[in-house]
Amino acid sequence: MAASPVALVAQTGEHKPLSAQESDPVRLGWMQGTPPPADRVLHVADGSFFRFPALRWSVVHMRELLPTVRVSRGSAAPMALPYALDPGIDKVAFKPWHADTTMTWEQSLWTNYTDGILVMHRGRVVYERYFGALGPTDVHAVMSLTKSFTGTLAAMLLAEGVLDEHKPAAFYVPELAGSAFGDATVRQLMDMTTGLHYSENYADPKADVWMFGAAGEPNRMPGDGRGPLGYCAYLETVRKEGEHGAAFHYKTVNSDALGWVIARASGKPVDELLAERIWGRIGMEQDGYYQVDALGTPFTGGGFNASLRDLARFGELIRDKGRHQGEQVIPQRAVEDIMAGGSKEAFAKSGYTELRGWSYRDMWWITGNAHGAFMARGVHGQAIYIDPKAEMVIVRLASHPVAANTANDATSLPAYQAVAEYLMKQQ
Amino acid sequence: MAASPVALVAQTGEHKPLSAQESDPVRLGWMQGTPPPADRVLHVADGSFFRFPALRWSVVHMRELLPTVRVSRGSAAPMALPYALDPGIDKVAFKPWHADTTMTWEQSLWTNYTDGILVMHRGRVVYERYFGALGPTDVHAVMSLTKSFTGTLAAMLLAEGVLDEHKPAAFYVPELAGSAFGDATVRQLMDMTTGLHYSENYADPKADVWMFGAAGEPNRMPGDGRGPLGYCAYLETVRKEGEHGAAFHYKTVNSDALGWVIARASGKPVDELLAERIWGRIGMEQDGYYQVDALGTPFTGGGFNASLRDLARFGELIRDKGRHQGEQVIPQRAVEDIMAGGSKEAFAKSGYTELRGWSYRDMWWITGNAHGAFMARGVHGQAIYIDPKAEMVIVRLASHPVAANTANDATSLPAYQAVAEYLMKQQ
Repeated sequence: MAASPVALVAQTGEHKPLSAQESDPVRLGWMQGTPPPADRVLHVADGSFFRFPALRWSVVHMRELLPTVRVSRGSAAPMALPYALDPGIDKVAFKPWHADTTMTWEQSLWTNYTDGILVMHRGRVVYERYFGALGPTDVHAVMSLTKSFTGTLAAMLLAEGVLDEHKPAAFYVPELAGSAFGDATVRQLMDMTTGLHYSENYADPKADVWMFGAAGEPNRMPGDGRGPLGYCAYLETVRKEGEHGAAFHYKTVNSDALGWVIARASGKPVDELLAERIWGRIGMEQDGYYQVDALGTPFTGGGFNASLRDLARFGELIRDKGRHQGEQVIPQRAVEDIMAGGSKEAFAKSGYTELRGWSYRDMWWITGNAHGAFMARGVHGQAIYIDPKAEMVIVRLASHPVAANTANDATSLPAYQAVAEYLMKQQ
Repeated sequence: MAASPVALVAQTGEHKPLSAQESDPVRLGWMQGTPPPADRVLHVADGSFFRFPALRWSVVHMRELLPTVRVSRGSAAPMALPYALDPGIDKVAFKPWHADTTMTWEQSLWTNYTDGILVMHRGRVVYERYFGALGPTDVHAVMSLTKSFTGTLAAMLLAEGVLDEHKPAAFYVPELAGSAFGDATVRQLMDMTTGLHYSENYADPKADVWMFGAAGEPNRMPGDGRGPLGYCAYLETVRKEGEHGAAFHYKTVNSDALGWVIARASGKPVDELLAERIWGRIGMEQDGYYQVDALGTPFTGGGFNASLRDLARFGELIRDKGRHQGEQVIPQRAVEDIMAGGSKEAFAKSGYTELRGWSYRDMWWITGNAHGAFMARGVHGQAIYIDPKAEMVIVRLASHPVAANTANDATSLPAYQAVAEYLMKQQ
């Protein structure tokens, strides 16, 4: 099964994968040289670009493999991040889930295949480190973190009255009328409580996600007999299963349907909207970008790429309830809606047994912990972790061999909590 | 014949093309909407993206259609360009070649399908204007202007002793030993005086340029039976015709062979070298980018994209003999070598009957006029025109329906000269 640009999941095979040190993409030499040696060349068509360990190179070089659309930072000077590095963080110890012994923060970064990590405390960078193919000016595929950008934009439009959360998706996108999304409300899309006949089980070669992936391939031509062409055309074919509003079901297509709604309601493609409303307004250092389908539509369910520092700037913007240097960039109401969380009852039905007490709101993951922490999460361990009580934002970019956060959470979530507690004790 | 990413030439058909006003890409609505209407969608595979008038959209959106590699500006603040706009320039009149009546500067911009134009005089912007799909923060395909970047990098490495102009290409790239380039010197590549069995006649469907184009297609897979895969593999197949050093023959493959030589001699891919040596050092506003082949090799013969203002910053750098704010970014010797020009005798044999007294040096076009003007030139009218005597730099981005500078020169070259003379009379 070829990996498609949409269904970006690593196939690791049956053996124990290489360690972070062993799988270092620079050391392995993917796509290095003019031209690279034949056995170091990666392709999209055969899926080789997204098999571990090669995916560790590809997550930092998506635009070299796929067409992409820029999310412009504009042309102003970047806003410098203030630094107050704290070398003590490396030694912060914590107990991973299901483990008997402790691990240090520094060890955890190797264990969970971190490519870059940045910790901000009270608005200052206290920790920053890069691994593998990632450097400070590089951008990295954030995958499902993309959804939190889509959800945030929707929450902004809601707060501004441009979107009505009670309206069905078909009100904004008439083409969705015949699909499962047609009678789903904007709110149900935003919180992923739609009832969809759609499987995102990457282990099943007949799962719907593969057809969705084919729809998103950038080199398709109309009439090629390969099914719906483009994200939008695919969304029109999704059928209903069960009822909307009953339970949280994590399905990427909700984020693409929401992206479509946003584009129609705002009159702008999502890449332009994100640039105009956020990326060009808070002193970003680097342009971001989305991968696009053959019709130029950005993949708002998982196709965004950004630099570590710029994701931290975004995280700080959210932690500050939408304010940046005295300006309200995101309506405070929109951020408060995210932080208030969604239905824990709906979430509990979803089968995330490790995430007790969590909820999902506006395409953010709300931990429900004592600190009120909430997250954007990507499938190879990418995260924006915001801890309001600890006044902390952690951004992690990663390329874990297993495409599931269950493989990351045991060594990342308790580590975030331990660093939060450590920082709260500092001056 | 499908247009390939390499052989980017417009096919206009037999009728008079739409005017600049009629062909405005925003008005025509290419790729607008989520999703765009079927008859406004452009594809690479069928060549529709590069047929006039659609190419007027595509030249500003190449990355949305093709894989590309960034040329990073870094993360510093851009250097502001000083402004002293002169509205008098619009009324400057000149006589186009072969014409009986005069035309104003402003009229010429419509006549030759200008997308963006910026004039600098003594280091200040005196004129700046955008048309069609281009805005100040957008990047535009510069096509054969790319060659002048390749040539400038080679001239830099020459001045630094990293390259030896007398050495054959095969000294740096052993894989070229069996090709026409094998015994061509670096100097012959730089000045395009190689003797190659290679036709770049876009009107001939059997011209070699089409096979070169196929080699550069980004979605190729090894073993697909379609001939050489990648720019490098193609270059190895080019056969000799006649002798090297005898005459100027404008053939894009020289620039790609030179790009390969540069990459090997410097140990860096050309995109990284350009970023490190120029793009990250003179206060650029926007990242540039190259389109790449299926092996990630940048198209150093014609695949670069940059913003109007950044091209002006580069033009000023060259006019200042490589100095930027007191720092020698390009060795002065390298710029002086460009300005001194190449063999007029070799050039005269090339059949450019309109360009009497011109020469080609380091992949720049040297006019040989009284002002010592020299140019980088792209096939749809893109230009960096540097007039040392008038202390003037003009950058023009364009999307003329005819893929040949003979269609542009009659209304651009005399216009540049007229503005130069106008500015020389100003304080």
